[in-house]
Amino acid sequence: MRILFKNAEVLRKGRKNVVVEGEYIRKICDTDISDTSGFDRVIDCSKKLLMPGLYNCHTHAAMTLFRGYGEDMPLDRWLHEKIFPAEELLTNESVYTASLYACAEMIRGGIVSFTDMYEKCGETCKAVAMTGMKANISRSVLSFDKKEDMSTSFRLNESKSLFREWHNAEHGRIKIDMSVHAEYTNNENSCRATAAFAVENGTHMHIHLSETQSEHEECKKRNNGRTPAEFMRDCGIFDVPATAAHCVYVTDSDMDLMHEKGVFAAHNPTSNLKLGSGIMRTSEMLKRGVGIVLGTDGAASNNTLNIFKEMHLAAVLDKGATRDPGGHNAYEFVRMATENGAASQGRTDCGIIEEGKKADIILVDLDSINNIPMYDPCYTAVYSASAGDVSLTMCDGRILYENGEFLTVDIEKLKSDMRHTCENYFKENK
Amino acid sequence: MRILFKNAEVLRKGRKNVVVEGEYIRKICDTDISDTSGFDRVIDCSKKLLMPGLYNCHTHAAMTLFRGYGEDMPLDRWLHEKIFPAEELLTNESVYTASLYACAEMIRGGIVSFTDMYEKCGETCKAVAMTGMKANISRSVLSFDKKEDMSTSFRLNESKSLFREWHNAEHGRIKIDMSVHAEYTNNENSCRATAAFAVENGTHMHIHLSETQSEHEECKKRNNGRTPAEFMRDCGIFDVPATAAHCVYVTDSDMDLMHEKGVFAAHNPTSNLKLGSGIMRTSEMLKRGVGIVLGTDGAASNNTLNIFKEMHLAAVLDKGATRDPGGHNAYEFVRMATENGAASQGRTDCGIIEEGKKADIILVDLDSINNIPMYDPCYTAVYSASAGDVSLTMCDGRILYENGEFLTVDIEKLKSDMRHTCENYFKENK
Repeated sequence: MRILFKNAEVLRKGRKNVVVEGEYIRKICDTDISDTSGFDRVIDCSKKLLMPGLYNCHTHAAMTLFRGYGEDMPLDRWLHEKIFPAEELLTNESVYTASLYACAEMIRGGIVSFTDMYEKCGETCKAVAMTGMKANISRSVLSFDKKEDMSTSFRLNESKSLFREWHNAEHGRIKIDMSVHAEYTNNENSCRATAAFAVENGTHMHIHLSETQSEHEECKKRNNGRTPAEFMRDCGIFDVPATAAHCVYVTDSDMDLMHEKGVFAAHNPTSNLKLGSGIMRTSEMLKRGVGIVLGTDGAASNNTLNIFKEMHLAAVLDKGATRDPGGHNAYEFVRMATENGAASQGRTDCGIIEEGKKADIILVDLDSINNIPMYDPCYTAVYSASAGDVSLTMCDGRILYENGEFLTVDIEKLKSDMRHTCENYFKENK
Repeated sequence: MRILFKNAEVLRKGRKNVVVEGEYIRKICDTDISDTSGFDRVIDCSKKLLMPGLYNCHTHAAMTLFRGYGEDMPLDRWLHEKIFPAEELLTNESVYTASLYACAEMIRGGIVSFTDMYEKCGETCKAVAMTGMKANISRSVLSFDKKEDMSTSFRLNESKSLFREWHNAEHGRIKIDMSVHAEYTNNENSCRATAAFAVENGTHMHIHLSETQSEHEECKKRNNGRTPAEFMRDCGIFDVPATAAHCVYVTDSDMDLMHEKGVFAAHNPTSNLKLGSGIMRTSEMLKRGVGIVLGTDGAASNNTLNIFKEMHLAAVLDKGATRDPGGHNAYEFVRMATENGAASQGRTDCGIIEEGKKADIILVDLDSINNIPMYDPCYTAVYSASAGDVSLTMCDGRILYENGEFLTVDIEKLKSDMRHTCENYFKENK
């Protein structure tokens, strides 16, 4: 399959023609290609911005089930009265439907890959395989008993089985990471066992880190003054490439530690505001060389899986928090959502529009009313564009969404399935 | 014209039929209306949320010209190198085109009315008249010379002429407010003269108030310790109903003063973050009984005219800033964007879906992928919905936008005009 994106405004490159052949970007050129007979498709991009597909680097896809279920509540009541009881009722079927739905929502908004942490993850893998997206998926280990025998821990064993069954499936589009949920839901024993498997098998690691102030402070009390980042380092969690979600309360020296260990901070600005956690110190992290990626968190705490929204919020929130409108260039935030996202997932062949890279490409409608005028495409992408402006999403050279049509899922059936799943789910839950 | 909105999910009322007759909401009922022969149109709303049209209570419509023009710069360089020189070149034609464009963008996103402060305001009035929206428009007075003779001030005189020509035009859809730009751009003399005209003619007042810390502190130095709010009160600015934009640095006692005088605070969360100003203390204001409305500010500092975005950001930002996810119910933020907006503009006959009120109605697509599942329409409206989900915007019973079509503007011509205006504008500016 050869596709020509003709006369596109390519982010940071100007007007170009982009040739996709099979899974790859084959050529990016200025010259007008007048003979188009060798192409299976020519896509007119005269009013389109062509940019890399987006990465959602911290989410719980199946939590689309709980979008808008219980809001405006204090965190502990929300968790104990709403989310935990609801999660008790998860079935393979509901996780599959909700994960597939999450994939469709992400594809619609230009996301080509996500980093997920949840349970019943085989169902999420099936959904990803079905849709043609990419994902790094992990089953989070929790262990509340310090003396738990980790060789028989069902969570860690699920995690290992998941790895054996799904790692590198779908031509590498699916990767399985290891995960410990967080310091406050684990102990040295469970963290060391999980890290050991990760090191042995060369997987990535996905954790929650210093999301709330109380979590951060309680950890220090429990661990002779060590912060969650220090605790995780000491357990070997950062001996493999890791993504640490939230990082709202990491200290300056935690940041230096993250930089030294190459740990990516997954910034979830909407979720951190909505759950009353606080504001991650983006500027300080950038100054200290920490790699930042963006995440939506689950739909229960966002409530959408929209990386355009997070990119915009991350950019303006950092200016607001530092009282510095100069601050970082808009491209810094595009980088978080693209190049850095791919790097954090261990994908070296994508995340950027370059010859020889995988064709993970989105088109953004520059004729959308909020995108006129355009003085600089980068400002348009970060400050004006919305997920709804995405007119095409391509992953590994395959078009997954175009102009209202989903090419890999039956969206009308899926919406109907999702509505029924949610309705029945909470009937059983009452 | 009789229109039936059939089987709509009406915000806070449940499934209803809504009958619009002429300019008014005539009937809201449960019973199925089987005989639809008396209606000119029946709109199937089975997958729609019906809610009041939104109010954008602080903007500079014509600044769509400068959307994305100069970004990521310190505030003073942005103003002095970019915005002020660009504004020197404003013409009637460019203000008209950019205002009309702003109206179209607002209508697309469910906004029925806005509160504007700028110059060459007659052009903005013409644009509003053309589109069928509502607006409170003001020409901001600035006076840097304390001894300026206000009877010959061209800005105040423009303001008075505007009032005479346009106040209550278009069946009251257009109202002219008086405006002093801010304390730091005025003096007691100019404020008193503007207030006097407002009192005499019963207009509303629109000002900028305590947007930045330096503005707030400098005012106190200049005025024997008086805050901008105290200064404005002493000049009589709050002797008429007033809207004060930003209010990031108002003190607790300023809030009490605003409550006592019935001054609405126009909260512009995106602009305040993006310009590095800070975060308005929403919760404290609500506690002290200050009426809050929402604004986008101009497109140069936002960069979109999207009240769904501001409603969402206002809600999550307050939770984040107070570290309290419980905080205020989502409806509090819908109220800011609807009921309060109408009240701040002195419009007592709209802003709410009730029999006998003006038919300012929008439909939000509940079949949009980010709006499924829906457990509570209010949460959907605030936390999930986007401006792009608006499928119909009606103002005073007249449909201005429906399913991609603009009924009062030629949108393709307008986009083309806007692109040309912006291209030529900056050619001349270089």
